[in-house]
Amino acid sequence: MKERVSDLMSPAGLVDIERMDCNIRDMATKADENGVLLRPHVKTHKCIEIGKKQEKAGATGITVSTPLEALVFADAGFKDITYAVPLAPDKFSVIQEIMKKTNLKVLVDNPITVELLDNFSRESNTEFRVLLKVNCGNNRAGVDPKSQQALRLAGKIAQAQKLEFKGILAHAGHSYAARSVEEVRRIADYEQEIMVTFAKALKAENTDLEPRTVSIGSTPTVQLAESFREAITEIRPGNYVFNDYTQVALGTCELKDITFSIQASVIGVYSDRLVTDAGATALSKDRGPTHLREDSGYGKIIKNYSEGSIEEGLTISSLSQEHGNVAVEGEHHLRPGDRLRIIPNHSCLTANLYDHYFIVKDERVIDKWEIHRKRLDE
Amino acid sequence: MKERVSDLMSPAGLVDIERMDCNIRDMATKADENGVLLRPHVKTHKCIEIGKKQEKAGATGITVSTPLEALVFADAGFKDITYAVPLAPDKFSVIQEIMKKTNLKVLVDNPITVELLDNFSRESNTEFRVLLKVNCGNNRAGVDPKSQQALRLAGKIAQAQKLEFKGILAHAGHSYAARSVEEVRRIADYEQEIMVTFAKALKAENTDLEPRTVSIGSTPTVQLAESFREAITEIRPGNYVFNDYTQVALGTCELKDITFSIQASVIGVYSDRLVTDAGATALSKDRGPTHLREDSGYGKIIKNYSEGSIEEGLTISSLSQEHGNVAVEGEHHLRPGDRLRIIPNHSCLTANLYDHYFIVKDERVIDKWEIHRKRLDE
Repeated sequence: MKERVSDLMSPAGLVDIERMDCNIRDMATKADENGVLLRPHVKTHKCIEIGKKQEKAGATGITVSTPLEALVFADAGFKDITYAVPLAPDKFSVIQEIMKKTNLKVLVDNPITVELLDNFSRESNTEFRVLLKVNCGNNRAGVDPKSQQALRLAGKIAQAQKLEFKGILAHAGHSYAARSVEEVRRIADYEQEIMVTFAKALKAENTDLEPRTVSIGSTPTVQLAESFREAITEIRPGNYVFNDYTQVALGTCELKDITFSIQASVIGVYSDRLVTDAGATALSKDRGPTHLREDSGYGKIIKNYSEGSIEEGLTISSLSQEHGNVAVEGEHHLRPGDRLRIIPNHSCLTANLYDHYFIVKDERVIDKWEIHRKRLDE
Repeated sequence: MKERVSDLMSPAGLVDIERMDCNIRDMATKADENGVLLRPHVKTHKCIEIGKKQEKAGATGITVSTPLEALVFADAGFKDITYAVPLAPDKFSVIQEIMKKTNLKVLVDNPITVELLDNFSRESNTEFRVLLKVNCGNNRAGVDPKSQQALRLAGKIAQAQKLEFKGILAHAGHSYAARSVEEVRRIADYEQEIMVTFAKALKAENTDLEPRTVSIGSTPTVQLAESFREAITEIRPGNYVFNDYTQVALGTCELKDITFSIQASVIGVYSDRLVTDAGATALSKDRGPTHLREDSGYGKIIKNYSEGSIEEGLTISSLSQEHGNVAVEGEHHLRPGDRLRIIPNHSCLTANLYDHYFIVKDERVIDKWEIHRKRLDE
């Protein structure tokens, strides 16, 4: 293993361990002080070592978004896992296998899925622990918590012979589209309000339906929420371990809280632009917070890492597969072979393009951890 | 291995082998009939089996865009490889190692890189075969072929003790931004014109500088070029093996020529939208040909694969990490668990998210081939 950041072949994914440890500790403290369980979403990092740090800091379990994540974390000894994407029938068998190793909860929001899962669970003689996905305004997935259908679906789960109704789960992903800290706070309030009200309605409908888990989730809303209402039992932030330029633009963290960055090399110097070796396969084509910052480009080039400043004259203007195009304003003294450190627009998608994190303290590389980005396609 | 497409867990990457064989044969025939060598860019597929098909059909070598691609194809017996991204000093050593196994050419466009490579080649006693990258209007990388600096840089390479000047290389990547077939044709003409003129200027400067390789590139320009001028020695298309929705929108292929698609599952059904399990990690966030089709979304959902028709009422409107959001116009009868087949906006970036291709003939899965998307980060 290379000993110094400057010796790594680029593009390379770097994790600043001291900063990340702070992020992990701060979120665990917030959960603890507010009396909620912390179930971090590991889709951001897909890394056993980081998951173990989160567990050691006090996480009671983890959240995953693919069967492969469930499997590799189960194999690594994680016992309490929520698979937080609406379950599809093609995944029933693989999830059933993973449940032999671990206490896994699955997510549903549609009566047809519940019916198919009910059949499968009886035929395979397997008990499935089921959460009901709730739409808290994100309008991606989830039942309308104000509807009769939502109560009926919870009842249908609870009545099924081999399904256990464990509770309700929401994700305020629309917080990423907010235009101000105040708007994130309003979304955070609404997410809690709607879940508390729905939990009460379920209990009022039938005491069997009182949800043991009332889970909320996004990094922006839990970062900015000042407290959590009593009925909320757990939070599921993911991005907070790394943060990224989107979180900075939203106002939910500062530049110095970003712990994941990419080291790139300058491979071309021209009169009006630079080219780096960090293209779309190194940064992802996530456009980032364009609703907040017109110049968000495809990530930001760091000027001074310890001060947390950005190179204002350098904009990553477009990406092709292995080339990053950097528009230049003003003077610079960069030449081929020089290194740039880039903070991504969206850490989760950028991390998904690497096989390892190089764990760094200042300029030293102290470890190398695997990123489990493979697919389960056997 | 699963026997039928419908048995595969989604998202899964499918390659229609009969259609792909046609694309491979047609391009090989075009190169042969026009008297140019074919050096396909394997960054599109990153797959040994597909590279071997291209070689068998007549390719004289391959083009790669990362050291890992160079390494895995070299290990698989490919002998003639061009690494077509401007070389950076951090990759000198690894390229030198790979050159022990294969005849590799590297690309430069900057005198500083040439100086550093000259030093490295003498210190390591290794001969590097060098191509000069030419800007043919793409304005990404490359020297200005009309400049004195370009001639001087070629001279500097030729004079270096351990560098061998092999020729010139261009890539008309700006063809992807064209607004019509006519515009792609004009770009194709210009790419050839500028290379032929520069080759002559090099020979006029010094007969030692006459380029043995005069290489041009992009799939759109070589698909639409009616012929190749005599001085052009090779073409390097990559995307043509798969094609994608961008090529269709450009008018460089038809829907039935797209050979790579993604099978997704419906995981949510709501009044105004669907959700699938093909998110940003399954399709990539490439926006595709937005300059040509406002509704290009993040890929297109197929209505009838054999007819090559698209579901006009279903638009992949946004992607989060593992969720694909589909806006619905009009009626549909889809329910959770139903399968959708999606053609990507940009095959190269989508393929880079999978570990295997499932090779299919109609509904049968006949093979499974590895995609070498890993990074060389030892």
